Amino acid sequence: MAKSKYEYVKQFEMEQQILPESWFVVRLDGQGFSKFTTAHKFQKPNDKRALDLMNSCASEIMLKVPDIVLAYGQSDEYSFVFSKKSKYFTRRSSVTSSQFASAYVFNWSKYFPDVPLLYAPSFDARIAIYPTDRHLRDYLCWRQADCHINNLYNTCFWELVKSGVSNKQAEIDLCKTVSSEKNELLFSKFGINYNAIDEIYRKGSVLIRKVEYFNVTTPDGSAGKRVKNSIQILHCDIIRDKFWSEHNILDL
Amino acid sequence: MAKSKYEYVKQFEMEQQILPESWFVVRLDGQGFSKFTTAHKFQKPNDKRALDLMNSCASEIMLKVPDIVLAYGQSDEYSFVFSKKSKYFTRRSSVTSSQFASAYVFNWSKYFPDVPLLYAPSFDARIAIYPTDRHLRDYLCWRQADCHINNLYNTCFWELVKSGVSNKQAEIDLCKTVSSEKNELLFSKFGINYNAIDEIYRKGSVLIRKVEYFNVTTPDGSAGKRVKNSIQILHCDIIRDKFWSEHNILDL
Amino acid sequence: MAKSKYEYVKQFEMEQQILPESWFVVRLDGQGFSKFTTAHKFQKPNDKRALDLMNSCASEIMLKVPDIVLAYGQSDEYSFVFSKKSKYFTRRSSVTSSQFASAYVFNWSKYFPDVPLLYAPSFDARIAIYPTDRHLRDYLCWRQADCHINNLYNTCFWELVKSGVSNKQAEIDLCKTVSSEKNELLFSKFGINYNAIDEIYRKGSVLIRKVEYFNVTTPDGSAGKRVKNSIQILHCDIIRDKFWSEHNILDL
Amino acid sequence: MAKSKYEYVKQFEMEQQILPESWFVVRLDGQGFSKFTTAHKFQKPNDKRALDLMNSCASEIMLKVPDIVLAYGQSDEYSFVFSKKSKYFTRRSSVTSSQFASAYVFNWSKYFPDVPLLYAPSFDARIAIYPTDRHLRDYLCWRQADCHINNLYNTCFWELVKSGVSNKQAEIDLCKTVSSEKNELLFSKFGINYNAIDEIYRKGSVLIRKVEYFNVTTPDGSAGKRVKNSIQILHCDIIRDKFWSEHNILDL
Repeated sequence: MAKSKYEYVKQFEMEQQILPESWFVVRLDGQGFSKFTTAHKFQKPNDKRALDLMNSCASEIMLKVPDIVLAYGQSDEYSFVFSKKSKYFTRRSSVTSSQFASAYVFNWSKYFPDVPLLYAPSFDARIAIYPTDRHLRDYLCWRQADCHINNLYNTCFWELVKSGVSNKQAEIDLCKTVSSEKNELLFSKFGINYNAIDEIYRKGSVLIRKVEYFNVTTPDGSAGKRVKNSIQILHCDIIRDKFWSEHNILDL
Repeated sequence: MAKSKYEYVKQFEMEQQILPESWFVVRLDGQGFSKFTTAHKFQKPNDKRALDLMNSCASEIMLKVPDIVLAYGQSDEYSFVFSKKSKYFTRRSSVTSSQFASAYVFNWSKYFPDVPLLYAPSFDARIAIYPTDRHLRDYLCWRQADCHINNLYNTCFWELVKSGVSNKQAEIDLCKTVSSEKNELLFSKFGINYNAIDEIYRKGSVLIRKVEYFNVTTPDGSAGKRVKNSIQILHCDIIRDKFWSEHNILDL
Repeated sequence: MAKSKYEYVKQFEMEQQILPESWFVVRLDGQGFSKFTTAHKFQKPNDKRALDLMNSCASEIMLKVPDIVLAYGQSDEYSFVFSKKSKYFTRRSSVTSSQFASAYVFNWSKYFPDVPLLYAPSFDARIAIYPTDRHLRDYLCWRQADCHINNLYNTCFWELVKSGVSNKQAEIDLCKTVSSEKNELLFSKFGINYNAIDEIYRKGSVLIRKVEYFNVTTPDGSAGKRVKNSIQILHCDIIRDKFWSEHNILDL
Repeated sequence: MAKSKYEYVKQFEMEQQILPESWFVVRLDGQGFSKFTTAHKFQKPNDKRALDLMNSCASEIMLKVPDIVLAYGQSDEYSFVFSKKSKYFTRRSSVTSSQFASAYVFNWSKYFPDVPLLYAPSFDARIAIYPTDRHLRDYLCWRQADCHINNLYNTCFWELVKSGVSNKQAEIDLCKTVSSEKNELLFSKFGINYNAIDEIYRKGSVLIRKVEYFNVTTPDGSAGKRVKNSIQILHCDIIRDKFWSEHNILDL
């Protein structure tokens, strides 16, 4: 049985060529998550346990893949930003979605100890290439603006529903309101100050890497250094310049 | 906060164009599985529980994705063959690897009831396009020949090791033997007839879809038909013509 | 002045990966040729000189590029079919369009001795990949059917115009006629039997390679063989099987 | 003859997706030009007529294609830089190589009135995508440094050959010299001050667009404006910042 006779089929593998020295972003998205959240009775408009689980999965991936310089998550999606210097490949997108999904199942019971996982969820991955820092920042602005818009809408929607309005009527009531009217509705009708809602819901989660150096004494008695790589989870604005001047991300 | 202002970044998403009416194959490969199998004390040369777990994950995916007409698995890899008629996209590769990995973790305890899963494994995905039926069959020949070659080697290797030979020496002993010598070694030294070893180890697993129609009586009393989609797991030769003439795969 | 310092920019060159062992077709199309044919007073509906010029350019390219197994031309377009076995690259499309355009200008005066070339024309190139022989044949059917449909329409149109009908009216008269009505119009009104019109106009031009071997006497007196590669220009049907069984193209 | 039946083959056309808002460069390269320059007895080390012909072809293309913001030529190559804002396609590369080659043949006799063109030359096209202005400038530095290095070498080589040294010996003499030694050789042996050599040979040709507005009186007597688009040919340094601060290219 000649192995070599068939090996020519390897040349048919397709690997998309990626532009070097550009920002490479993989965005994972939960597949069929409206059904999944219903089946597992997620709290509305936000379930803190689910966001914590997402953040733990993303942190694990960032610890494993040093090329990732930042990750941003909200709802059932997570974006991973790879360093411009990394020699990434598009195959990376399938590994990332695979790692995330298996970590999600693996870590489930830690965040949902009382909720049995009924079936295995999955995530698809899109890839995008951003030529300049401005494009990358605009991408992240897009996702954080999306987080804000969805959360404001969902907060109003579920308050209306909890107050007895039907799902359909709540949708109708909200469809033509602008942001300021939604803020006003929350405040006047439900006594909720939107800006006082936890930032994790309004801003999403921003994961950055923290590298710490410790002085240690090596076995032979001489002084040495130990590196500790950890992941910090922030819930801050990444649209304005402040975050970017405080954190040296773009030069990584 | 204008959402639209940032939405232009969507056009930077890359989606590889795939040749229509060609065979599309996604092959998943376990990441770091030699470490994983050691950590979880997999039996050598083959662990039936691990293969059954792989097969259950692949079956689940085939049931969910009607475009898959055949799947072939061996060791820690699985190939999914998509119908030439399907409107697949390369993003499909990330979903498949994600579904597989989360199913692997989800189903773990069913196949390894006594082995706690220590960490979440992952799978990467390669895609290949095969223009003709001949190319597709050669691809599957390649994988099945690889299964045979690896299994014959591993069977010899672990028999030698179990008999007291060191790992290193076993490697040296085997490195220059051809197939017939390995067969002879197994028979003369360990009384093993290689061809009597279970086919799941020698041939791998071939998953095909079985569609059955049942006559049913509908609630209003009239006659109807119900379709039942199931997956058959075979451990047969797919190199010779017999399999292909018995199963109508290539026209699906 | 360090050259090496800048050479990293080479890695940004994009070369599209092409599926191996598939049919690769480059189709050239004249850019702005309705303006070009008007400026150079091409005869209507067909200018034999222009078609001969196109055929001479295509023949030159086929002689230079052994990987081309067939070429098909009509009007201001030419398709070049590369052997499935060739190691082609997409860059090939730019060379082909370049060779064709410069040959067109170079050979112009031979076919239009009395018409000065007023400006340099150009051709764009599209590439397509066909996985099987059937796809390739369907591609060529598409182009030859297109030739027939356009030629039938143009023959009617210009006969009407020559008979005094305005361009606009001719268009209106023809827009809803089917093929049989156009044939009838030509015959009853202008005494033209469409099927008697020269095949070069109705079928386009099919270029195939002819390889001849000659017995020669080498300088040292011994017998040798000389190969002569020439291009044959046919104006035959390539939709039906006859052409393909008479000419061994698909196995080249 | 159903046209529609075959039209499905159109979907097999491959058009490479190009990253938006990035610099897109098409570089043309003469095919087999060492044979071509020998056949047409080009003067060595540089033939002014040939460079003027190249520049005239490139100017024509820039006038026709408003998306090109800069072109750079040297020897038998020309690079065209397309605006970041343009909606270019990779097919553009085949049109550019086609336009250039036909213009080359068309304009030949104007620059080589006494040299009959023996055969039609051709040019291939490579495409590269540069994500940032820095990458684009480095690309142009690479080409201009290449121009300098080749011209210095060729000037030495042909002076040696003209002085009676064999081609082979001249190659040996030069192969290990650095730039300063080549400059010294030219000065001490042949009385040539390299820096006094015409800039077109040392720097290549830089084409930029000049848009002029003229006040005109329209037929109805009112004041109007006429735009005149012309191409300026410079032979200046484009490695240092001076050129880029004087010419507003990067924001076009």
